Amino acid sequence: MKPLGLADGRIVDLSENVVPMEDRGHQFGDGVYEVTRVYNGKLFAFHSHMERLFRSLRELRIPVVYTEEDLLTAHQLLIDESGYSEAAIYLQITRGVAPRGHNFPQHTVPRLTMSIRPTSSHPLLKTGAKGLITEDERWLRCDIKSLNLLANIMAKQKAAENDCFEAILFRENGIVTEGTSSTFMVVKGGVVWVHPLTKLVLPSITRKIIIEQILPEFDIPVLEKTFDVAFAKTADEAFVCGTNSEIMPLIALNNQPVGDGVVGPITKTVQDAYRAIIDKECGK
Amino acid sequence: MKPLGLADGRIVDLSENVVPMEDRGHQFGDGVYEVTRVYNGKLFAFHSHMERLFRSLRELRIPVVYTEEDLLTAHQLLIDESGYSEAAIYLQITRGVAPRGHNFPQHTVPRLTMSIRPTSSHPLLKTGAKGLITEDERWLRCDIKSLNLLANIMAKQKAAENDCFEAILFRENGIVTEGTSSTFMVVKGGVVWVHPLTKLVLPSITRKIIIEQILPEFDIPVLEKTFDVAFAKTADEAFVCGTNSEIMPLIALNNQPVGDGVVGPITKTVQDAYRAIIDKECGK
Repeated sequence: MKPLGLADGRIVDLSENVVPMEDRGHQFGDGVYEVTRVYNGKLFAFHSHMERLFRSLRELRIPVVYTEEDLLTAHQLLIDESGYSEAAIYLQITRGVAPRGHNFPQHTVPRLTMSIRPTSSHPLLKTGAKGLITEDERWLRCDIKSLNLLANIMAKQKAAENDCFEAILFRENGIVTEGTSSTFMVVKGGVVWVHPLTKLVLPSITRKIIIEQILPEFDIPVLEKTFDVAFAKTADEAFVCGTNSEIMPLIALNNQPVGDGVVGPITKTVQDAYRAIIDKECGK
Repeated sequence: MKPLGLADGRIVDLSENVVPMEDRGHQFGDGVYEVTRVYNGKLFAFHSHMERLFRSLRELRIPVVYTEEDLLTAHQLLIDESGYSEAAIYLQITRGVAPRGHNFPQHTVPRLTMSIRPTSSHPLLKTGAKGLITEDERWLRCDIKSLNLLANIMAKQKAAENDCFEAILFRENGIVTEGTSSTFMVVKGGVVWVHPLTKLVLPSITRKIIIEQILPEFDIPVLEKTFDVAFAKTADEAFVCGTNSEIMPLIALNNQPVGDGVVGPITKTVQDAYRAIIDKECGK
């Protein structure tokens, strides 16, 4: 078993040079991506990821040249060839290769690269992790899952250097948007709060599962409304969620405990229910 | 004569695969770039470009592993090997190659890729071009010349589709920042206005030459102050400037003429003086 890549329709070693320097992904971050989890050898929430991928491509006007079935075949090939049963599959599509210039090039074919690497649930899922609140310096189209991730990187690195799992971002007006690679939710008075789906946040697949499947099952109300940093700091519970993060409790924000400073009951309920949904779709 | 690349310290064909898929430039836009012009076979304003490059690297905490002398040698090699005397040399440095993750990777070596392509002054320099005013959707660190250029691309494409040379960007409050790949200046009552050097605009080399060398020579006053869209639309003259654009007069904004709708006297003065500085540094 070893990590593998896929480029130009064939399995490649990840160290192999597979991209020309004038790929617009390499020179402009001109492309989109998805990360899909493999549990027990099976893809989780695959269709939702592909729906979002096609939306991202449309928003950037990158021609859609792969069908969902093509991409399913590619994902399955990486699972089969690598032999991993617990893994993350990364996929990106760039606008293609062309002499450098800002305008869309003519007659350029979008380029797909993919990889599979083993992964596992984070050890802190049980006890919770810390979050760092910092400024959201990203562009204004965070609803597109694009390769322009420098602001995310810089904030995540700052979080890591402060022994935090994730950076929670706020805009100039103090409004909390989301994590650098996760959705941020808080619980206050039994109600779950999350930033509404605007151009400033990613339409997270995990968020969708929580809001559409988990919260209704347990009669937990949700408010998709903006809230600010002060509100977040006085929440009873907080967590981030996402394909990689799964449901990660945040027991402290900026080194101040959230609520009682332990994993709260609603966070635990969401965690258990999410695991049950994975088990149901992918088997134990 | 033909366009050439440089990767891993050697001259390569631009169609060659020289980048692994997990180069952080390719997956995150995690890198910086410069474009330097070659006039008459000689590099123009090379030291200023390298100063800015090193600043961009420091701001993103990408280790500086090349000296200005190393990079001069690489530029000279591309000029010599290609045989071009009128060209643009593109250079980018990414954080390097590592298994994908937002945090800075450990022990990763920054990667340099470069290219040379022929270029020439734009045919519209004499008569002027049109500009399109549109929203600035970029991130909040536009002072770093980074590879995160999607917002620039989308705006530039919109301009092109409206038969405009450049998109002039404004933030939510109506404040005009700059062009997608150029600095925007307006002239009103004999005074040149330009957005101050903050995190929202690139510290342009051409701007520096204009403000420090050209305007003082002709006793033309400059105000480095913010102004809004309404102000820009009622300017006497407008132009964008940059390494590629040189001094491009904008004789219309959103299809409304600027001033008399012809190249204004101050714009012409700046154009001629800029050309003289190039000729002085690079020879005729």
